[in-house]
Amino acid sequence: MARWEPDARLRLVQAAIDLYAEQGYETTTVAQVAERAGLTKATFFRHFPDKREPLFAGQEEHGSLLSEGAARAPEGATPLEVVGAALDHATAAFTPEQRAWGPRLHAVVGSSDELRERAAFKRAHLVGVLTEALHRREIDDPTAGIAAGLGVDAFHRAFDRWSDGEGPSYGELARAELHALYTAAATLR
Amino acid sequence: MARWEPDARLRLVQAAIDLYAEQGYETTTVAQVAERAGLTKATFFRHFPDKREPLFAGQEEHGSLLSEGAARAPEGATPLEVVGAALDHATAAFTPEQRAWGPRLHAVVGSSDELRERAAFKRAHLVGVLTEALHRREIDDPTAGIAAGLGVDAFHRAFDRWSDGEGPSYGELARAELHALYTAAATLR
Repeated sequence: MARWEPDARLRLVQAAIDLYAEQGYETTTVAQVAERAGLTKATFFRHFPDKREPLFAGQEEHGSLLSEGAARAPEGATPLEVVGAALDHATAAFTPEQRAWGPRLHAVVGSSDELRERAAFKRAHLVGVLTEALHRREIDDPTAGIAAGLGVDAFHRAFDRWSDGEGPSYGELARAELHALYTAAATLR
Repeated sequence: MARWEPDARLRLVQAAIDLYAEQGYETTTVAQVAERAGLTKATFFRHFPDKREPLFAGQEEHGSLLSEGAARAPEGATPLEVVGAALDHATAAFTPEQRAWGPRLHAVVGSSDELRERAAFKRAHLVGVLTEALHRREIDDPTAGIAAGLGVDAFHRAFDRWSDGEGPSYGELARAELHALYTAAATLR
């Protein structure tokens, strides 16, 4: 019965963000999201287990990109350089669609405890994945965990700044945020 | 109808940790937790909204202690000193009961995506509260957020080490973890 739905996933994400922003996350149903996307409820559930997940559709891709980028940093790179390489590689995830929907996505996630909880879990997931990538480069804990935490915070802060306007590229912002976070961390004493 | 239940909350936490560790989180019901604690389901729901929450019963207290401790640091304290003062004050939360149930709590939370997600949200909550306490001391972002993140990570790492054995006091471990995390952060470059 499955039709050919080349961009079904993207359409569901777009429809979810639009509807949650327009009429509220709590009151929107999966059926409404599917209808807005021109798809069936069954198709929604082939792509996502529940109505939260379209908002976090990028989690696995973001983790993979950060991990691959970390692996590609030159031999002998410092922990901060490895994280910088991870962020450079993650730039591939950030399309014009995402820039356009960023502010609405941010507002929707901030509107619900359930979604803020899910966002915290996404952070923990990405920190875990990036920490493992640093371990594979023989960077141990606690250094690996700290570097990964700063990297993922830079990743999210750069997304918020990038999707907010017409400014620098995502990659430039992510590097700048990482530098700012590292500088702050190094001068806490 | 409410009976006098001076330690109902603590008994429910203890019963939840015990049962989830013995027979699994997914398969344990609220009714079973209440029964193990010698209380009714209605009493459970007066203390907690669902079966996850007994495992995170300390969240509000931990946030308040960190926040109060930060407020009590001497004038002119650096961000790291303020966070150290917050951790010192949080020591008040750590009773012998908690030392005893720490390893089981850690294992139970690690056994379930739902609980690991809730734990990530607790981290985000504590980082938020501590960041606000640092703002009130005129420490700005990103410094405040970074200092709070390191502080909350030290808070959790110290809890895991402390509840694992008969070693140093919680306060000593928290200070040592904070120092180790700061040192790691300052040498990432």
